[in-house]
Amino acid sequence: MPDFAAPVSRLIDELKRLPGIGQKTAQRLAFFLLRADRDQALALADAIRAAKESVRQCSVCGNLTDVDPCQFCTGAGRSRRTICVIEEATNILPIERTRQYNGLYHVLGGALSPLQGIGPEKLNIKNLLERLKDGAAEEIIIATNPTAEGEATAMYLSKLLKPLGVRVTRIATGIPVGAELEYADEVTMLKAMEGRREL
Amino acid sequence: MPDFAAPVSRLIDELKRLPGIGQKTAQRLAFFLLRADRDQALALADAIRAAKESVRQCSVCGNLTDVDPCQFCTGAGRSRRTICVIEEATNILPIERTRQYNGLYHVLGGALSPLQGIGPEKLNIKNLLERLKDGAAEEIIIATNPTAEGEATAMYLSKLLKPLGVRVTRIATGIPVGAELEYADEVTMLKAMEGRREL
Repeated sequence: MPDFAAPVSRLIDELKRLPGIGQKTAQRLAFFLLRADRDQALALADAIRAAKESVRQCSVCGNLTDVDPCQFCTGAGRSRRTICVIEEATNILPIERTRQYNGLYHVLGGALSPLQGIGPEKLNIKNLLERLKDGAAEEIIIATNPTAEGEATAMYLSKLLKPLGVRVTRIATGIPVGAELEYADEVTMLKAMEGRREL
Repeated sequence: MPDFAAPVSRLIDELKRLPGIGQKTAQRLAFFLLRADRDQALALADAIRAAKESVRQCSVCGNLTDVDPCQFCTGAGRSRRTICVIEEATNILPIERTRQYNGLYHVLGGALSPLQGIGPEKLNIKNLLERLKDGAAEEIIIATNPTAEGEATAMYLSKLLKPLGVRVTRIATGIPVGAELEYADEVTMLKAMEGRREL
């Protein structure tokens, strides 16, 4: 005898496909939805459908958007002189939260990873080169993650872009604000030393 | 300027209403769904809708089900002599996993909690009394949680049911299998001592 009614099992199975959601969490979420107000549960179903049907990639920068070009590409107050290159659309959020960056973005859709078969042709790089043609961009800030893949991608882009006469910069790696040196791993500590600046 | 396109924000907001899902997890799930295969994302939306539309409470035991009475109430191999009383439908799963219980269930839909205004009239108790009328049930196993509310509910039900001539039992509280006494809290340890049995 199955433990759950068929529609409940199906819901649990679908929830389990989400990242970081295991059997127990899926059960908890499923039973929450079943107990919840009908409108609330269906609002989630509708939000998934609406997002999936209206959201696509910005044809300019690769950001996820429901208007093309996206809000950043067409933003009146955004400077066209800087393009910040990131791996994923989610990476825009921490940068916007600084309230100091006012340029454009370019979403690669990942990072170079030969082991996973991700070469330059699988990343949104061709569009980036296209964007540089009008000469408006003066600086490309490469904000890929400070991981092996992100660093390799940064190096690759740097070699590709510098010959075009544009300034290519990389975000700093080092000890996070508020952290203690005692807990820093040796690679981060080394990067922090290497990246030291005059006071 | 909003950080996300409107349908993305809406999806994140709906995901955040789920228990244990905060802003960051909601963002991660939303972007996973947006990047996922169209069919997969819509399968989740449909599973929510289907579950919400087809699943209701079993009119006999209160379990969540798409057929009424539920699979346990109508199960051919289930003994009618025992009814296990639980707080929530999810509590059926750990009991079924023992593969030793073959009786029926009764879902209360919560536990007595005067502080939260949950009195006996808000629990599925009237139906339980109804079920006892045919005299088929010989034992009621009260498997509410060993919390203050669950214990109060167990005491209440015991006083209510015993006069009806049915045997009322309570699941054991004690040290979980595999745990170490060193880490047991004093109340659990006390319960384990009190519940000791002859060897």
